[in-house]
Amino acid sequence: MIKSFQPPQRVLMGPGPSDVSPRVLEAMSRPTIGHLDPEFIRMMDELKALLKQTFLTENELTMPVSAPGSAGMEACFVNLVEPGDKVIVCQNGVFGGRMKENVERFGGEVVLVSDEWGTPVSVDKVKAAFETHPDTKILAFVHAETSTGVRSDAKSLCAIAKEYDALTIVDAVTSLGGSELRMDEWGIDAIYSGSQKCLSCPPGISPVSFSEKAVEKVQSRESRTPSWFLDKKLVMGYWGGDGKRAYHHTAPVNSLYALHESLVILQEEGLENSWARHAKHHEALKAGLEAMGISFLVEEAYRLPQLNSVMIPEGVDDAAVRSALLSNFGLEIGAGLGALAGKVWRIGLMGAACNRRNVTLCLSALESTLAEMGAPIKTGQALVAAAAVYQG
Amino acid sequence: MIKSFQPPQRVLMGPGPSDVSPRVLEAMSRPTIGHLDPEFIRMMDELKALLKQTFLTENELTMPVSAPGSAGMEACFVNLVEPGDKVIVCQNGVFGGRMKENVERFGGEVVLVSDEWGTPVSVDKVKAAFETHPDTKILAFVHAETSTGVRSDAKSLCAIAKEYDALTIVDAVTSLGGSELRMDEWGIDAIYSGSQKCLSCPPGISPVSFSEKAVEKVQSRESRTPSWFLDKKLVMGYWGGDGKRAYHHTAPVNSLYALHESLVILQEEGLENSWARHAKHHEALKAGLEAMGISFLVEEAYRLPQLNSVMIPEGVDDAAVRSALLSNFGLEIGAGLGALAGKVWRIGLMGAACNRRNVTLCLSALESTLAEMGAPIKTGQALVAAAAVYQG
Repeated sequence: MIKSFQPPQRVLMGPGPSDVSPRVLEAMSRPTIGHLDPEFIRMMDELKALLKQTFLTENELTMPVSAPGSAGMEACFVNLVEPGDKVIVCQNGVFGGRMKENVERFGGEVVLVSDEWGTPVSVDKVKAAFETHPDTKILAFVHAETSTGVRSDAKSLCAIAKEYDALTIVDAVTSLGGSELRMDEWGIDAIYSGSQKCLSCPPGISPVSFSEKAVEKVQSRESRTPSWFLDKKLVMGYWGGDGKRAYHHTAPVNSLYALHESLVILQEEGLENSWARHAKHHEALKAGLEAMGISFLVEEAYRLPQLNSVMIPEGVDDAAVRSALLSNFGLEIGAGLGALAGKVWRIGLMGAACNRRNVTLCLSALESTLAEMGAPIKTGQALVAAAAVYQG
Repeated sequence: MIKSFQPPQRVLMGPGPSDVSPRVLEAMSRPTIGHLDPEFIRMMDELKALLKQTFLTENELTMPVSAPGSAGMEACFVNLVEPGDKVIVCQNGVFGGRMKENVERFGGEVVLVSDEWGTPVSVDKVKAAFETHPDTKILAFVHAETSTGVRSDAKSLCAIAKEYDALTIVDAVTSLGGSELRMDEWGIDAIYSGSQKCLSCPPGISPVSFSEKAVEKVQSRESRTPSWFLDKKLVMGYWGGDGKRAYHHTAPVNSLYALHESLVILQEEGLENSWARHAKHHEALKAGLEAMGISFLVEEAYRLPQLNSVMIPEGVDDAAVRSALLSNFGLEIGAGLGALAGKVWRIGLMGAACNRRNVTLCLSALESTLAEMGAPIKTGQALVAAAAVYQG
């Protein structure tokens, strides 16, 4: 006989999921109601309004996809890429590679702009790619690369696309709520995010938004979208603005309660205050880690405050350290992905997990664990260095 | 400022979501942990074992899709239909139509076998379709049509497909846990269900299972699956049996806690006991409704105990009744879908909602509401008729 599952209490400082506020967990356990209940529909309207505030957009087609971030990505590509469309895909980490896979599976022609992992998308290379391929229909790039902790210059990249009248698809899975992101001001046409990063909600939902221009492309496409579940033409009937809620699929009711609550919390704090909070705790974490002699993968100007990729000190056993942090402190930090596996740790400071208690725990637990393993680090200085940031 | 959302307390007797046990809601609100946490991976193994017990299958590829039932449907079709494949699709309600859409979107050739809404899939027509199209690759049908409340003869239909060496894709969204379903014994190759029907879990997760023969087709397909999120070749790396858990997408951690708990509850009751419970309360509800003079859409032999489609009495305002039930009793029953809109109500008796208290509430509330509206029903006999079933 299998028994009820009682998860351990962790502190989640990996690349997501991040710590979930007790308020959000409690919201998720409220009574399930029907997906066509008038009260639920009222909640959906509020959810749309909250998401618009968070993406900083006026887009009518702003809604949560009923599945994780990868499905949000797919919702953008499967609706906007038509067979034969030329798409410039920028790859500087795992998720750019996934975009490329998406375009190929939906019959698009990929023009790849590659940059080294740990560096941002090169604005110059994108410019050059458009000069060579002025008939490009879509520019796709990752704003915040979760695999490396790099922020790319979304504003400048979108401006180039605009010159060529191309649509933009932007991965904001890790940036939404954690650092500056202005959908309308920057001219982003399609964006997707995830519930489990800086929104600090359990994983499983992917907020997306489509500009009017993107909606036009969806409405006018000649070929049928090769997905029923993600077909925006159909989904709009349920989430659309015309007041009629046609049944499409059964919405994940309780997961949406959770997202709603997490967005209410973000609204209470204020979006820009949240960005500032992420920046502040990142500074403290950075000061502490550097005081230990641990360096960052990414150049300072392109670092994401919410996701810190740091070099694993020489000779240190990656898995042993993460395992010790988990079993001795209940602390999760992330491993490197793909080419960076074994080389970096990814320390998240996302949403509810981004606070002084966690910064201090992470520095203490890491110093204590590395010291115990005889790693080549400087001890006794990290906490003071972090404290100085908080005082300053 | 938007405030926290406090849903009303409903009794969910529509076509799903159904009432969720407080145990499941509480499980959903347990602390979120990482999707690669060793404790989470242990829970995943238990979840797979529980799903196998529920589908009555030994299939290694048995897992929850991280999205609602429509995505589970799509996971079956997008992986198993290759361009040009001939697929016999049986349509006797809304969901057979959705299967047809799936096949077309993935480039398959549909051979449609149509039956009237409210009747089961005709075994003879399917036999004839195979005789005319012996090169058919896949037979797809809905075991339990949620739009009509009809059960089709899955065992006989699968036996025909086997004669022609065709794969079978079966929609078991509403049947799983609520009425007899034997995946391996009946020879089903790919099946999908939903969390929010007889498993009584919040909506958002779709359990699926693929037979060895279905997995072979996935492994040997020539064209790339036109979905990254649902590509079983990739998903198997995370959910597969080789012990290695390669990151694919971030699993919806808390929603899986809920599914785990609901399956533990089902295991405690016993699968066949659950089927019997659904049958018993259906009998009581039926006796009560018939005593009121309300008749069923579906012939007795093909009725689903968990979903009762009943004819709306002459001259009664469909929406007004449902709205009165909701506001005066907090009771949700379902409207008709598609061709049956305005003609039938769909009364669910699913999972935790399938109990004597709900049967009694539904009969009382309906009688009281219809009497108040002056509808042509017999009053004063329904409760006695239902009680007789419980006594007998």
